[in-house]
Amino acid sequence: MNILDYETVALLDDKDAIQIIDQTLLPGTTKLIELRTAKEIWDAIYILQVRGAPAIGVTAGFGIYLLMKHSKAKDYDAFMAELAEHKAYLDSSRPTAVNLSWALNRMEQHVREYTADGAKFELKAVIEEMRAESERIKAEDIDVCRRIGENGLTLVKKGDGILTHCNAGQLATCKYGTATAPIYLGQERGYNFRVFADETRPLLQGARLTAFELQSAGVDVTLICDNMSASVMQKGWVNAVFVGCDRVAANGDTANKIGTSVVATVAARYGVPFYVCAPTSTIDINTATGSDINIEQRKPQEVTSMWYKEPMAPEGVKVYNPAFDVTDHELIAGIVTEDGILRPPYTESIKKLFEKK
Amino acid sequence: MNILDYETVALLDDKDAIQIIDQTLLPGTTKLIELRTAKEIWDAIYILQVRGAPAIGVTAGFGIYLLMKHSKAKDYDAFMAELAEHKAYLDSSRPTAVNLSWALNRMEQHVREYTADGAKFELKAVIEEMRAESERIKAEDIDVCRRIGENGLTLVKKGDGILTHCNAGQLATCKYGTATAPIYLGQERGYNFRVFADETRPLLQGARLTAFELQSAGVDVTLICDNMSASVMQKGWVNAVFVGCDRVAANGDTANKIGTSVVATVAARYGVPFYVCAPTSTIDINTATGSDINIEQRKPQEVTSMWYKEPMAPEGVKVYNPAFDVTDHELIAGIVTEDGILRPPYTESIKKLFEKK
Repeated sequence: MNILDYETVALLDDKDAIQIIDQTLLPGTTKLIELRTAKEIWDAIYILQVRGAPAIGVTAGFGIYLLMKHSKAKDYDAFMAELAEHKAYLDSSRPTAVNLSWALNRMEQHVREYTADGAKFELKAVIEEMRAESERIKAEDIDVCRRIGENGLTLVKKGDGILTHCNAGQLATCKYGTATAPIYLGQERGYNFRVFADETRPLLQGARLTAFELQSAGVDVTLICDNMSASVMQKGWVNAVFVGCDRVAANGDTANKIGTSVVATVAARYGVPFYVCAPTSTIDINTATGSDINIEQRKPQEVTSMWYKEPMAPEGVKVYNPAFDVTDHELIAGIVTEDGILRPPYTESIKKLFEKK
Repeated sequence: MNILDYETVALLDDKDAIQIIDQTLLPGTTKLIELRTAKEIWDAIYILQVRGAPAIGVTAGFGIYLLMKHSKAKDYDAFMAELAEHKAYLDSSRPTAVNLSWALNRMEQHVREYTADGAKFELKAVIEEMRAESERIKAEDIDVCRRIGENGLTLVKKGDGILTHCNAGQLATCKYGTATAPIYLGQERGYNFRVFADETRPLLQGARLTAFELQSAGVDVTLICDNMSASVMQKGWVNAVFVGCDRVAANGDTANKIGTSVVATVAARYGVPFYVCAPTSTIDINTATGSDINIEQRKPQEVTSMWYKEPMAPEGVKVYNPAFDVTDHELIAGIVTEDGILRPPYTESIKKLFEKK
């Protein structure tokens, strides 16, 4: 079976479980695992068994539903207190991606609205409604990614070279991916893109996941180290960069996997347009600029030893390991959403988009 | 014993051998190995048991001496033919660093001059003179690095943050290193630099060698992935970048370890001065611009599998793995040589330097 034939995240409602592909084992081993407890869900997000802002959002939606499914709450207030507790816990698993809190807030808000703030509270019905809402989040993710793909595809032409960083592929979403959506749609339509996948240290999502899923789909993909982006752009091999994102601020500054802003800086030097593919759920109008985004710091071992036969750095060396960086809006040629392509000045185009919504 | 107490390259004349630290085993294992045959020397350079342009030059000098030491050549022409054959073979081990051919040419040229183009050829004396010349290359390397350090130190102040890429440290030379020379001299004089070492994929010379040797020297060093340079510069933690080089063209374009031009591009964005530390032997006035420099391509396995417990990329994926890139002279604030700091326009400052020599 092709990796793309597996669902990234699925609700197994009869088993009270979320099924995910354990992405820490890819590309060597394709293993489906089931998450049931709050701790299992938290850990899966934290250690990146499931990752990618959209997929984390879907997992969080299913998670909060499952954790409330067997609630014994006697009334609305007790139910909401229980929900708030689980929500805060799940939300603490990763701080940077906005989709995590976005999905959790949406689930909570839906309960509020469905029950008219508790006036029409009925335990069984509320729980069933939470299930339906969590499945809607997933269905919307697929639809949103497809629409991002259609919009992104208008920015490139047949035979183009496309560079991407990290994995904003199908494995980061429920289908198509965000940054890869134009690539997959183009593949179906004979665009014959040549794709360059940054390996994306330290967790190698580009090598392990992006190169893997694109290769599985028959896309012409070449793996490079993160520090080779200038070399391939200098050769004129790259016509556009597409990346995903974890949070877009109201001014267009974008938090994404560490190294994204390096790619954007290099692309600017070589005149290659740099596009951020962003479901509108990733745009956080409550975050004014990139400097307001909390950047997750991770363990030194990810850099020094985790994949290696033996440690590749001297024992006890200091390591700085931010999981994300912020790309200045100045470096972004366009933000590709399901509702169209936002162009600078982003403060205005983002505001306009949210006014319409 | 501290890693800095071992000689990077030493001639063991009584054993007909070159002794090197096998740098592929660092930082886990410190192992001295002896090279005797042409193939052993070629392999050691090719697989990077000894690496760094200056150290490769010293190794080549010792190597060509040892390979000629037991020559049975009957006359000057036979001797020179034998020498030319060994020289061509050793020179083929790595194409990008100019010091390799520089040292080999110097040895050959010295034989020509010493024998007055064969007029005063005397086998034993010539061989002894080759030994002396190869030791002079090494002694000069140490002196040159120290002078680069003195010049580089004038570009920074106490407490500065310095970022470096790859290893242009003592392990790449016979002492002090090039890019690290200002750091080591500053360390002796209480400058208290905070150094950031890029890990430098795919061969991890920054993690395995630079972080290791700086830590051994008691320098405050922090290891980062190559894609984190923008993050540390954005925070204002870096006051200067020092890198080594493998070949500087006549216009200042500089070939150095893959990723160097990415660092230079990022540094330019954040207004951080980017300095190339270059023994004048690394400046090749016969290479007009960076586009004339032959960039070594290396095996996919370096990227996909070599250090790992299991392969970290899908089987058979295409990999582009250039060992070097070229940094445009525009991005270079200064070229720090043993004879002073060259400033733009480099075509003029380099020309002037070589006219003086």
